[in-house]
Amino acid sequence: MFKPGRHFLQIPGPTNVPDDVLRAMDQPTMDHRSPEFGVLGLRALSSIKTVFKTAGDVIIYPASGTGAWEAALANTLSPGDKVLMCETGQFASLWRKLALRLGLEPQVIETDWRTGADVAAIAAALQADTGHRIKAVCVVHNETSTGCTSDIKAVRAALGNAEHPALLMVDVISSLGSIDYRHDDWGVDVTVGGSQKGLMLPPGLSFNAVSTKARAAAAKGSMRHSYWNWEEMLKANSTGFFPYTPATNLLYGLVAAVDRLHAEGLDTVFARHQRHAEATRRAVRAWGLEVLCRTPEHYSGALTAVLMPDGHSADAFRKVVHQQLNMSLGNGLGRLADRVFRIGHLGDFNDLMLAGTLSGVEMGLKLAGVPHQSGGLQAALEYLTDTASGVCDAQAA
Amino acid sequence: MFKPGRHFLQIPGPTNVPDDVLRAMDQPTMDHRSPEFGVLGLRALSSIKTVFKTAGDVIIYPASGTGAWEAALANTLSPGDKVLMCETGQFASLWRKLALRLGLEPQVIETDWRTGADVAAIAAALQADTGHRIKAVCVVHNETSTGCTSDIKAVRAALGNAEHPALLMVDVISSLGSIDYRHDDWGVDVTVGGSQKGLMLPPGLSFNAVSTKARAAAAKGSMRHSYWNWEEMLKANSTGFFPYTPATNLLYGLVAAVDRLHAEGLDTVFARHQRHAEATRRAVRAWGLEVLCRTPEHYSGALTAVLMPDGHSADAFRKVVHQQLNMSLGNGLGRLADRVFRIGHLGDFNDLMLAGTLSGVEMGLKLAGVPHQSGGLQAALEYLTDTASGVCDAQAA
Amino acid sequence: MFKPGRHFLQIPGPTNVPDDVLRAMDQPTMDHRSPEFGVLGLRALSSIKTVFKTAGDVIIYPASGTGAWEAALANTLSPGDKVLMCETGQFASLWRKLALRLGLEPQVIETDWRTGADVAAIAAALQADTGHRIKAVCVVHNETSTGCTSDIKAVRAALGNAEHPALLMVDVISSLGSIDYRHDDWGVDVTVGGSQKGLMLPPGLSFNAVSTKARAAAAKGSMRHSYWNWEEMLKANSTGFFPYTPATNLLYGLVAAVDRLHAEGLDTVFARHQRHAEATRRAVRAWGLEVLCRTPEHYSGALTAVLMPDGHSADAFRKVVHQQLNMSLGNGLGRLADRVFRIGHLGDFNDLMLAGTLSGVEMGLKLAGVPHQSGGLQAALEYLTDTASGVCDAQAA
Amino acid sequence: MFKPGRHFLQIPGPTNVPDDVLRAMDQPTMDHRSPEFGVLGLRALSSIKTVFKTAGDVIIYPASGTGAWEAALANTLSPGDKVLMCETGQFASLWRKLALRLGLEPQVIETDWRTGADVAAIAAALQADTGHRIKAVCVVHNETSTGCTSDIKAVRAALGNAEHPALLMVDVISSLGSIDYRHDDWGVDVTVGGSQKGLMLPPGLSFNAVSTKARAAAAKGSMRHSYWNWEEMLKANSTGFFPYTPATNLLYGLVAAVDRLHAEGLDTVFARHQRHAEATRRAVRAWGLEVLCRTPEHYSGALTAVLMPDGHSADAFRKVVHQQLNMSLGNGLGRLADRVFRIGHLGDFNDLMLAGTLSGVEMGLKLAGVPHQSGGLQAALEYLTDTASGVCDAQAA
Repeated sequence: MFKPGRHFLQIPGPTNVPDDVLRAMDQPTMDHRSPEFGVLGLRALSSIKTVFKTAGDVIIYPASGTGAWEAALANTLSPGDKVLMCETGQFASLWRKLALRLGLEPQVIETDWRTGADVAAIAAALQADTGHRIKAVCVVHNETSTGCTSDIKAVRAALGNAEHPALLMVDVISSLGSIDYRHDDWGVDVTVGGSQKGLMLPPGLSFNAVSTKARAAAAKGSMRHSYWNWEEMLKANSTGFFPYTPATNLLYGLVAAVDRLHAEGLDTVFARHQRHAEATRRAVRAWGLEVLCRTPEHYSGALTAVLMPDGHSADAFRKVVHQQLNMSLGNGLGRLADRVFRIGHLGDFNDLMLAGTLSGVEMGLKLAGVPHQSGGLQAALEYLTDTASGVCDAQAA
Repeated sequence: MFKPGRHFLQIPGPTNVPDDVLRAMDQPTMDHRSPEFGVLGLRALSSIKTVFKTAGDVIIYPASGTGAWEAALANTLSPGDKVLMCETGQFASLWRKLALRLGLEPQVIETDWRTGADVAAIAAALQADTGHRIKAVCVVHNETSTGCTSDIKAVRAALGNAEHPALLMVDVISSLGSIDYRHDDWGVDVTVGGSQKGLMLPPGLSFNAVSTKARAAAAKGSMRHSYWNWEEMLKANSTGFFPYTPATNLLYGLVAAVDRLHAEGLDTVFARHQRHAEATRRAVRAWGLEVLCRTPEHYSGALTAVLMPDGHSADAFRKVVHQQLNMSLGNGLGRLADRVFRIGHLGDFNDLMLAGTLSGVEMGLKLAGVPHQSGGLQAALEYLTDTASGVCDAQAA
Repeated sequence: MFKPGRHFLQIPGPTNVPDDVLRAMDQPTMDHRSPEFGVLGLRALSSIKTVFKTAGDVIIYPASGTGAWEAALANTLSPGDKVLMCETGQFASLWRKLALRLGLEPQVIETDWRTGADVAAIAAALQADTGHRIKAVCVVHNETSTGCTSDIKAVRAALGNAEHPALLMVDVISSLGSIDYRHDDWGVDVTVGGSQKGLMLPPGLSFNAVSTKARAAAAKGSMRHSYWNWEEMLKANSTGFFPYTPATNLLYGLVAAVDRLHAEGLDTVFARHQRHAEATRRAVRAWGLEVLCRTPEHYSGALTAVLMPDGHSADAFRKVVHQQLNMSLGNGLGRLADRVFRIGHLGDFNDLMLAGTLSGVEMGLKLAGVPHQSGGLQAALEYLTDTASGVCDAQAA
Repeated sequence: MFKPGRHFLQIPGPTNVPDDVLRAMDQPTMDHRSPEFGVLGLRALSSIKTVFKTAGDVIIYPASGTGAWEAALANTLSPGDKVLMCETGQFASLWRKLALRLGLEPQVIETDWRTGADVAAIAAALQADTGHRIKAVCVVHNETSTGCTSDIKAVRAALGNAEHPALLMVDVISSLGSIDYRHDDWGVDVTVGGSQKGLMLPPGLSFNAVSTKARAAAAKGSMRHSYWNWEEMLKANSTGFFPYTPATNLLYGLVAAVDRLHAEGLDTVFARHQRHAEATRRAVRAWGLEVLCRTPEHYSGALTAVLMPDGHSADAFRKVVHQQLNMSLGNGLGRLADRVFRIGHLGDFNDLMLAGTLSGVEMGLKLAGVPHQSGGLQAALEYLTDTASGVCDAQAA
């Protein structure tokens, strides 16, 4: 069935790729060994560092985020190494599964998937690990499956307090470019990112931001791998080149996308996401529904997961929204399957796109026969209106 | 100031050009005398006829709609000819001004710019013109400045009843492809269209659909012109070519755009526009504002003009919406300047885009301090939801 | 039949549109009454002036070049006015035909279509016109049908010597942006240009560069027209807007295209065209064929028309080239039909594209059984090679 | 320095991406878990099989070809396994290096890098391996660094004759879609491909075509990896989905690119490449230079590597060509560094593009002061002309 108008892609990534980023990629592929490519490569590499907020190195892989997860572990660790993993949701769970496949021994700190990483438990585990068997602590900054963020700074403090030498590895796949994150300031050793969320690019690029300590660990890691090898990358990167053929056209887009982030200003970008998230939560509450994240300090700026009323299928609801309203919402993953739907409000987004999105949720709830009160959209609009001037003044000031 | 997300282009044209139409135009320009061009030309010419609903000829000009207005008059009439023109709004008024410049003598039937053409007055004027001095009756099907349509079928009946030989000329610039229109069935002699509204193309093409009677008149018209000449066009068009260089890349887009209209189905397209117009009017009334068009039978499916409360500037309101909410609304034109704003809901559009649009109006009214009641958006959503299933069922049936 | 690889579009326009110009147009259409549009409009208007080399005004029409021809005459002249027209080829002939349709009285100075305008004859005609009945002198700067240029400076001198007040109107449709041209320096009153040749844009825009004297004449011209009206345009243009909907997306491209011309440098652009023209002529001579233009001082930098040996059809040859070699060459027009083929070497072009083009001609001559000597390409390559360093040094200096 | 016209990208990949393939990718990214994506995924997966000529499975990775090399080895083998590798050039050498990193034990059969794999030596090695310690034989079908192909069918016969159970793994990165290759017919177990050569896509996708035997081996392989895991991929692929986010926009392009290959016809595509390769070799010989590949049965249809005369730097020559002629040629790799240049004539290519390319080489040789005879281009043109008709007739028949 033909669906007129623009599709509302409101999953928590891939996000809407801005027209000028798409057009930047819609250019002839160039010789990746030419002088012109070196200029592009250096620009791409320096651009991406500003988003991770690191003065150190960022590796760019022609790969999905899953590849960058593997790269982080494969470069720095050795089979049999113990890793402390915080299972805050489905993606943390998948990272753990990947670690198992690589022969690592994950020690898991669980949550109920409705909050951030349990920093107290992490601290306790580190304190208990007097033999320093734990080689890395792995945390997902923004759990895409739950809409809960974790306090990375506090995790670093826990490591510091325990005087524990483990590496700190953080997944920012769905927070990079949408939620405040600081690789260097927060003392992260390996940050794992992807292109298709806050960076507003199609999928196909992923990243490892690496600390000096991580590189030193890599020199000793004994895991067998080649594609993910940091040192070869960094050697070639020093002149803007890559050891194997890079995803050239995505690099064109990367430069354009980071330019956009800075044109808006990273802090403005982050504030925009927080404001849209708050508007969304107000809508959810007005509908009489429940936000999955139960701890406000962990609310995500990038997405909001919403619990369905008992006895109602989230997927049936999402199907109605998709078919009748031309909008994609995120599904519940893993143990949350069919129990939540997720509203992505990240990337290249604005107030009226959010209003359209929340309108679609409100219409869909009614069309799908999900018990709710109307007025969610109205609540969101009031908040957006009340805070619109403020945002405007702040920008003018 | 950087504005994230997609701009809401809610003027009554140019409208949003669909991505695949833009991409169809983003192709190398071809030799306009090559055999491949002939194939394209024939396809473009036959495509556009289906939208005018004519088995006759449609001329495609590389020009704006204003050019096609001039072409309609210049081909068929002679200096000093009397033309009966219905001044339903600013565009009708501009067409009259153009007629004056060409040396024609417009006899004007006015309205208050809040309704369609006055068919009774047209009928009376035709009856009174026993000498048949009136050579053409000119009506704007959808007045883009007011959001009022005119009853073309009734105008034709008036001509018939009066047994008057005048040509019937109709401007469908903002109704073509968005509001039901039938060049042949309604006995129109010259229909004037443009690319940038319901056809979902950038501006740069305009059209004259011409009846046999119009071509016969053209053979006798003594106005001096060359670019607009129908006969040279039709001669070259017979094999898919043009007498001078056509706007090749817009023709690529034309074929793609008409394919889209038929993929959705013209009747479905028209019903969609009517439904969105009704939803918009419900919002307007719920805000306590007034729809400019005061006669429901003339409501436009393509746009809704809204009267501002006394003492409030429509342009000040539009400026707030533009700056703070990244949406363009249409301004009041001519005697309506600063007194109305116009909401375009035509072209490549859907429910959630309309919801975003009306959200922007509601937020803007508050931000600009325009007295209104909230709840307009809610009223629109209810209507859209209530009618969504029906639309769906109808399509499934 | 599927044809792999890039088509060689070697007609003398439309020319190859550079990828970044195509991409600049592949952007959402904007509100032509928004503040952002005003910025774009001013930029487009000031950009195009630099290519005409005028400090005065340039009108941008959403129309083909034929429209701009009409605009030049319709604004400044009155029915019955005498115009001195130099029939240097098919396009000059078409301009004359257009003048006749507008009720003007062309006095024609003919050539054999193998050279530039006959300046002596122009001078004589002006001297003879003591009553100043001639209101305008019309010359085509670069005859696209013959590959002969005319000496505009000399025509101006002829007007000056005769102390004749006629306007000087020049068609630069196929020379603008490819052959040196100076609207102000050469004292031209109306210069007529188009988008699809040296400007490297798709067709759909055309131009009138107008002198103060031309505007004064326009104030008195009595021809009936509206679309082409300069004064309304200039009034709106002063703030970057247009009196009717402009071809927005082509304006995006216009800005990008002019930026390209200046990135290369206009003088470098002109020298490149001359060098490619000379290489082409060397190839033609080495094949034992004849360049149509018989007077070297009128050789065109934009295209080269080549005479076919007697008894051989240029169109049959062109068909072979098109079908078997995926290249479009220009056909003979008017009295030259089937007797010449035209090689376009203008626009976004370089040495290797020319080498591919001339290879296609040489292969095509053999495939089509046209008597010739081989070695034309070799001769061109030698010239290109010999002059390559010089060009390089000059740029480095 | 600004370089007008189209860059000649004549490296042996990445190749020129056709405009419609670029435009197919220049579309909004979609939800990779939506029903629409499932349709796309199935189409992409079935499309790519036709190019590998397999009825079995093809894995699509969001990764470079290097990743697909790793995937082939990591899925099927275990650390310590012996692999017979044919070092036919730099890429074979890099694959060996990768195998070493994965803990495999390569047994290397060398060549002088001027011919295909030594099948007799492979046969002997397999015969000698009575204990079947060799688990896989790895051959590069088309060595991108040398322009020599290897006889895969003969290698399979050697395995058969020796009744050896080793897997046959073949790299077709630069032959897929440009040189005849048959995964099933030739009994290959794992074929490794990439997107950026004969497939005419940007880099970013790579492939493993896998036999039933290879999947059985994978069930037993003990190498630690996750991203490359075939079984998870195939499980998700069965409904058109992927276990992690795929490179969506490249998949759009993949479907468009394979459609192009079939529109031309795979056999026609292969014949075109062979014909262009022969034309290139004739040019090389006429210049008095030497084709690197010394055994005609191993000539590559995709590229031609050319030996520089002693004492002349290939890189200095390439730099002249790049700077002065706007063309990229491939450099010598590994032990061939600075001694050869490589002409890519693969992908979306035609006669006149080849003529432009060879013109650039001939001009560059002169500009760089490399001793040679002129006339190479002439020789190529003669061959292209003589064979043009035949090709045409064959297509018409």
